[in-house]
Amino acid sequence: MSGNSIGKLFNVSTFGESHGLALGCVVDGCPPGLELTEADLQHDLDRRRPGSSRYTTARREPDQVKILSGVFEGKTTGTSIGLLIENTDQRSKDYSKIKDVFRPGHADYTYWQKYGVRDYRGGGRSSARETAMRVAAGAIAKKYLKQAYGVQIRAYLSQLGPIKAESVDWNVVEQNPFFFPDDSKLEQLDEFMRNLKKEGDSIGAEVTVVADNVPVGLGEPVFDRLDADIAHALMGINAVKGVSVGDGFDVINQRGSEHRDEMTPQGFKSNHAGGVLGGISSGQPIVAAVALKPTSSITVPGESIDSQGESQQVVTKGRHDPCVGIRAVPIVEAMLAIVLMDHLMRHRAQNPQVTTKTPILGQL
Amino acid sequence: MSGNSIGKLFNVSTFGESHGLALGCVVDGCPPGLELTEADLQHDLDRRRPGSSRYTTARREPDQVKILSGVFEGKTTGTSIGLLIENTDQRSKDYSKIKDVFRPGHADYTYWQKYGVRDYRGGGRSSARETAMRVAAGAIAKKYLKQAYGVQIRAYLSQLGPIKAESVDWNVVEQNPFFFPDDSKLEQLDEFMRNLKKEGDSIGAEVTVVADNVPVGLGEPVFDRLDADIAHALMGINAVKGVSVGDGFDVINQRGSEHRDEMTPQGFKSNHAGGVLGGISSGQPIVAAVALKPTSSITVPGESIDSQGESQQVVTKGRHDPCVGIRAVPIVEAMLAIVLMDHLMRHRAQNPQVTTKTPILGQL
Amino acid sequence: MSGNSIGKLFNVSTFGESHGLALGCVVDGCPPGLELTEADLQHDLDRRRPGSSRYTTARREPDQVKILSGVFEGKTTGTSIGLLIENTDQRSKDYSKIKDVFRPGHADYTYWQKYGVRDYRGGGRSSARETAMRVAAGAIAKKYLKQAYGVQIRAYLSQLGPIKAESVDWNVVEQNPFFFPDDSKLEQLDEFMRNLKKEGDSIGAEVTVVADNVPVGLGEPVFDRLDADIAHALMGINAVKGVSVGDGFDVINQRGSEHRDEMTPQGFKSNHAGGVLGGISSGQPIVAAVALKPTSSITVPGESIDSQGESQQVVTKGRHDPCVGIRAVPIVEAMLAIVLMDHLMRHRAQNPQVTTKTPILGQL
Amino acid sequence: MSGNSIGKLFNVSTFGESHGLALGCVVDGCPPGLELTEADLQHDLDRRRPGSSRYTTARREPDQVKILSGVFEGKTTGTSIGLLIENTDQRSKDYSKIKDVFRPGHADYTYWQKYGVRDYRGGGRSSARETAMRVAAGAIAKKYLKQAYGVQIRAYLSQLGPIKAESVDWNVVEQNPFFFPDDSKLEQLDEFMRNLKKEGDSIGAEVTVVADNVPVGLGEPVFDRLDADIAHALMGINAVKGVSVGDGFDVINQRGSEHRDEMTPQGFKSNHAGGVLGGISSGQPIVAAVALKPTSSITVPGESIDSQGESQQVVTKGRHDPCVGIRAVPIVEAMLAIVLMDHLMRHRAQNPQVTTKTPILGQL
Repeated sequence: MSGNSIGKLFNVSTFGESHGLALGCVVDGCPPGLELTEADLQHDLDRRRPGSSRYTTARREPDQVKILSGVFEGKTTGTSIGLLIENTDQRSKDYSKIKDVFRPGHADYTYWQKYGVRDYRGGGRSSARETAMRVAAGAIAKKYLKQAYGVQIRAYLSQLGPIKAESVDWNVVEQNPFFFPDDSKLEQLDEFMRNLKKEGDSIGAEVTVVADNVPVGLGEPVFDRLDADIAHALMGINAVKGVSVGDGFDVINQRGSEHRDEMTPQGFKSNHAGGVLGGISSGQPIVAAVALKPTSSITVPGESIDSQGESQQVVTKGRHDPCVGIRAVPIVEAMLAIVLMDHLMRHRAQNPQVTTKTPILGQL
Repeated sequence: MSGNSIGKLFNVSTFGESHGLALGCVVDGCPPGLELTEADLQHDLDRRRPGSSRYTTARREPDQVKILSGVFEGKTTGTSIGLLIENTDQRSKDYSKIKDVFRPGHADYTYWQKYGVRDYRGGGRSSARETAMRVAAGAIAKKYLKQAYGVQIRAYLSQLGPIKAESVDWNVVEQNPFFFPDDSKLEQLDEFMRNLKKEGDSIGAEVTVVADNVPVGLGEPVFDRLDADIAHALMGINAVKGVSVGDGFDVINQRGSEHRDEMTPQGFKSNHAGGVLGGISSGQPIVAAVALKPTSSITVPGESIDSQGESQQVVTKGRHDPCVGIRAVPIVEAMLAIVLMDHLMRHRAQNPQVTTKTPILGQL
Repeated sequence: MSGNSIGKLFNVSTFGESHGLALGCVVDGCPPGLELTEADLQHDLDRRRPGSSRYTTARREPDQVKILSGVFEGKTTGTSIGLLIENTDQRSKDYSKIKDVFRPGHADYTYWQKYGVRDYRGGGRSSARETAMRVAAGAIAKKYLKQAYGVQIRAYLSQLGPIKAESVDWNVVEQNPFFFPDDSKLEQLDEFMRNLKKEGDSIGAEVTVVADNVPVGLGEPVFDRLDADIAHALMGINAVKGVSVGDGFDVINQRGSEHRDEMTPQGFKSNHAGGVLGGISSGQPIVAAVALKPTSSITVPGESIDSQGESQQVVTKGRHDPCVGIRAVPIVEAMLAIVLMDHLMRHRAQNPQVTTKTPILGQL
Repeated sequence: MSGNSIGKLFNVSTFGESHGLALGCVVDGCPPGLELTEADLQHDLDRRRPGSSRYTTARREPDQVKILSGVFEGKTTGTSIGLLIENTDQRSKDYSKIKDVFRPGHADYTYWQKYGVRDYRGGGRSSARETAMRVAAGAIAKKYLKQAYGVQIRAYLSQLGPIKAESVDWNVVEQNPFFFPDDSKLEQLDEFMRNLKKEGDSIGAEVTVVADNVPVGLGEPVFDRLDADIAHALMGINAVKGVSVGDGFDVINQRGSEHRDEMTPQGFKSNHAGGVLGGISSGQPIVAAVALKPTSSITVPGESIDSQGESQQVVTKGRHDPCVGIRAVPIVEAMLAIVLMDHLMRHRAQNPQVTTKTPILGQL
């Protein structure tokens, strides 16, 4: 147990169920002196928020975050920051029918087996609604990293079902409801999603995240490598089934002479490694990707069982995203921000000066 | 810092450099009463050991492990177990030429930037030699899991460059130097490796691991999900660039109606999830895979720089594996064993009885 | 940083300032299936609450706790429990005068030095008001320990200034505002406190805590001994300057033949050890005590400085307890409960069966 | 379980039994660039070593420590440091008679109850011999703190039975076998110990430790206060039954006007607090003390039981210290060093610059 915390020095502990009274978290270890308002957190919460387009769940939650502590006269004090989002649109009757039924592909069965009891309303703690607090906490890390070191963390939907981005234009990403970076394919995406909705089915996706200006030296081998902790944080997002760094699974068929990123006095010649060498940031952009499974909340009927072990047919009605990957974009950014923040602090505990050292490479 | 420990309850802390005096570790938290001898650890160490075939490095290390504490009259006592492997074949002169040069694709540059100093002999702490202690510690976890719960953890090389296993025969795996499960392709593999060696190049690989008979209920959402901790442990292995659970990156193009594993009173109808639902083991086999990059230790010349920032050409001589993925097989098993052991203990801290509960599904 | 969490498996993370919007905490790791209502927590909160007698601060806070998550249909679900107490009586103008002045004996100076910024309203995070959440979280641990193992945790004021309890009658403890166990001295206490108040001064105290029916075997040597973790938890209470277990500082002048608790088939013949041997609970009552300093919030003028380093005279007005030791009684109980709960879970992770084992001694 | 580690960032994990093959530890998180040789560790090991005077056990162990990793070309590399001391003088036959008997006042009974099995040779893991590794690890922390910040950590025997030091002369401390600071009482001590030995009994003691030049700002409220972590570390030393900071238990009978340390522009006027305010170092000397019980290893016969629950008489022969407090002096220093080092690193993770800030007080 005690699995609701992440981060060793920048530590985030969350609570809250999909249809409970509120979601909340404690952000412990934030450095003092950071200017912080609720508006700083709200921007990313709004990007994640349900109901923001016709391709995401129709559930409407203002997701208004309150800062309850740790900020005084507009600045963080170095003490623990309490955050709270009250649940307003709960409609739990939607879920009462499936009280004793395990929806296939969901955590219903495993929570029931693990705990012997479960909050069946909307998945309870296993609902993706829980990720709202991750986004709020991540926004604090993002702001600190940006202000103190110029780190920029941005994600996008790199693939949705068969439709893959061929180009990445960051200006495009925030201007379409899919966070998709390739505007030549937006129409195709739109059509695909409309058809999917008609069929009552769902689809998988890939989200790619890039962090620029990450200081060299973050990561604590041999177990708490930067990439290992990124993998932990990203695999811990609901629906994620795979995590890659740099070239990821493409390395299987690469040769050493092709993969190794050669170095010149002007900088690295390539970034197959995705900004991590030996578990430590190299100063190149950190590049990671996650594969998100298609949600199991679909109207296509499926076979399952109930808590008596009896056979049941399941049709998930209610308000659900046909592609949970879309709304995962700000969550992936938030989780990467939390990991980088934690490792920045871990690094400077050991080497308080070293982050200001000039790398010997020119174009890092 | 303090990144050389893994596991919250079954905790492994390692030390040791490639060309230092010894490798060692502390295994803290092992339950008392487990019969344990050095021979129990040696079997997996021998599988990982260099020099065991012509496709792995010619370095010869007996890798003889000693148990220094925590075992009394043949049984674990519940106190911390100290393990030690003395380094015997060190030949550090092989490496003296590259003292000031950063080998591309290696951790030389990042260690130097992070710490301001590095043990340049054979990669020091960043050498894969460090993984010997993981294998030794993992063997303890494997034995406990096997004896107490019947858990069986086995890995194999599922792909090497373009050559992919089409079938999995566990009997074949241990009978060829590649840990490859498909004997129809062994000849092809052999030829591929011979050519690669001639060219002085290296190749990537995929290793797949399967754990059978894992109790339902392991994993601590929302951050310490079982799959998140597996991702952490596997991405923390040298050269790993991607981790997947179940269908992994294939889920991107799957539909919900196809991916969700339907349930019947007799059991699950499929295992796309790889044995984890909502971050908790489902009782199905745990299936995970890692992508390993081609080693950068090759004789094909490459561009790099030295610690003065000057341009240098690098040719890595010495004794190296053309495919580090092969020897990773027992390491992947060990890391999964450590994670499962840790989560087994975490689970029973909260629910001491629950693991004996009969799942309601027939064929888990 | 990240010091606002306690417990490895039963983990409590708190937030909140004296005059902020709210106090809150996350209790992570509580076993599922425990019946829990807000009333279960309120009882101890009421015992700690300011304004409950004329000998404690006149500040009036209803300290009404809300359970925001982790409990469903009256039972804990095994997921993280969110607790919240809104601050209602804040009167921050009382404190505005001392904005730039460091009250001697308080944390004003060290917080300002550590963080460069501080919430000066009522001590901010360093206020004893923070301990309300400890009491709420501890009440959960207390209830579980009681129900599952019959553990009973009770504290009392064993000394206040020169007045020492000569006898311990548990029935007396809850029937006087001092939590004092010796009713022959209540009048004397009353008089002492009345005089102290007139003088505007404060006084130190000792609180003793006893846990009965603690299972044998709790504690994880060599560093996380049960007594070491008790010392950590109790020394972490505001104003505590000393912690003892069993005979405590009296052992300095004891002989081995006197101190060692001899054993007979019927049980131990004495309990000088306070229920802990070698860092592990022996099955005897756990006995510990804390020394609490006199609060520095007094009206007797004192010398100090301000944030410019200038000399200042300080007189602390406002509402303060002349003896903070009195209200510490439920806090000490709560902290011991959290430690015992955490160690119970740690123990059964390693030995799920062992707690049911019958000790070989008769009268443990 | 997993209790054999201490420190969050400067982390020490130990292993080894009294009569096993070796003692060892992993020191993880030490900053790179510290000059370190085995001689740096040996000095404190020699101070702790048995056989150094006629008042400590006659067991002779050279306690020669080896550095196995983490140091390269005379400097720490920032990677984990492996330390090893081989046991040479084991004589385990001394202990075979008490194989099934629980020595009163020892951990025999609780280890057996907790683990179901125990290494009965000399107390196994519960032997004070284990503390040798603490001393070695602490010596690294001491050296870093001294070199980087000028911190000086020194302890002395402040009381042995009825004999209390009336004055503290640091020059005297290292020049007598008792680490006693008051040479007017050395003769008295000597006589007391000679009589005690004749009687075959043992005596308790108090050890006081002082750290000078500790930077202001160390400590992480509200749970990981500096004093709370000191209490954890010191109560975790074998035989310790009480820990105090500053005036300790004397505060019970102090008034606020007397206890609070007033401040002037030139500095604090007193140090009743022992250098910690609100859980954070104030820049004043850290002062702490521990009460150590008289060892139970005496030749005065005592009543006990065996593992069958049968009555037994126990006389502990073999080689034992009549006052374990004496040799605890370097152990207490080591534990305080580990805590201060850990908190220094935790502090600078959050505030990398702040430790260089000039305190506004003159004579800190």
